[in-house]
Amino acid sequence: MKILLIGASGTIGSAVHRELGSSHEIITAGRNGADVTVDITSPESITQMYNTVGKVDAVISTTGATHFGALSELTPENNEVSIGSKLKGQVNLVLLGLNHLNDNGSFTLTTGVIMDDPIRGGVSAAMASGAVRAFVKSAAFEMPRGIRINEVSPNVLVESIDKYGPFFPGFDPVPANRVALAYRKSVEGCQTGQTFKVY
Amino acid sequence: MKILLIGASGTIGSAVHRELGSSHEIITAGRNGADVTVDITSPESITQMYNTVGKVDAVISTTGATHFGALSELTPENNEVSIGSKLKGQVNLVLLGLNHLNDNGSFTLTTGVIMDDPIRGGVSAAMASGAVRAFVKSAAFEMPRGIRINEVSPNVLVESIDKYGPFFPGFDPVPANRVALAYRKSVEGCQTGQTFKVY
Repeated sequence: MKILLIGASGTIGSAVHRELGSSHEIITAGRNGADVTVDITSPESITQMYNTVGKVDAVISTTGATHFGALSELTPENNEVSIGSKLKGQVNLVLLGLNHLNDNGSFTLTTGVIMDDPIRGGVSAAMASGAVRAFVKSAAFEMPRGIRINEVSPNVLVESIDKYGPFFPGFDPVPANRVALAYRKSVEGCQTGQTFKVY
Repeated sequence: MKILLIGASGTIGSAVHRELGSSHEIITAGRNGADVTVDITSPESITQMYNTVGKVDAVISTTGATHFGALSELTPENNEVSIGSKLKGQVNLVLLGLNHLNDNGSFTLTTGVIMDDPIRGGVSAAMASGAVRAFVKSAAFEMPRGIRINEVSPNVLVESIDKYGPFFPGFDPVPANRVALAYRKSVEGCQTGQTFKVY
């Protein structure tokens, strides 16, 4: 399959690239260092990416910025980081990409464990993930031409635990290569409308 | 208690007013015909409302516009209706209202059944509700001064079935006065971080 991987340079994106790269053609997209440059906070940039890449069989998003910080310091303004990127960015990848997907293709988005298992400072990110999960669940039933849509919700990563560990007390981190399997399940499997939890 | 009820003129808002009006002091807010005028899509308008009303013991939102329509016609632009109102509007009522709530006060927001039980054309509304649910679940753990937060997820209403029935095939509508009980539970009860489903 021809797979468009957005966020390919991140820890999860790199693991997905390794997992799927030997059996599929991967086109990488990201803010820099990728085959195609894209800023998912801009609908125009997303449309330009799709026009550059042409038709694909699968779109995988392993990207989406969020604001982390205490609820007492969360404002309408800094909450926009999560809304503009992880939420709208990923949703718009679907809305603007539908006509660029081949029949029986798939979208796979990324959420995260803290929508199910809250942490201090994670409210904005959890909110964005909750939106993406509900979007995926509903959108699956209206997808045309056999197109499927799922999202992967990873736990905190082994690879990130030095940096983020203090924010995730008592969480059991998972290696990125285990998370990457869930993207393979979404792309090559039959399921749609699902949250693949890697907790 | 002194309760600020935003969206008081709607079907649910009116039922909540009837349910709580005899035992509490209710201040109504809405776009028109209320004690205080507010446009929840505007952070400035929300702040102005709180400054006008002063301290309250509970904030109830029974408001939030959404875009209904087929996924194939959902665009980044019309999806903004749900994001700006039901999602950001309600979240901002909390972020901007925290300091206007008395100790041990509560926020109660409104989501909806279709985030759990999708209908055709409901993807944008479901997305907004999913965001609000995840926000509430996480925010509850960071609320200061004993403040609680919940959301009520109503089924389609008996009162709205003539208008919306065709969009909800096989749904078992609930009367608004039953939905109103869930708001009483949120305001007078002890729970926080909950989704009170009235399905």
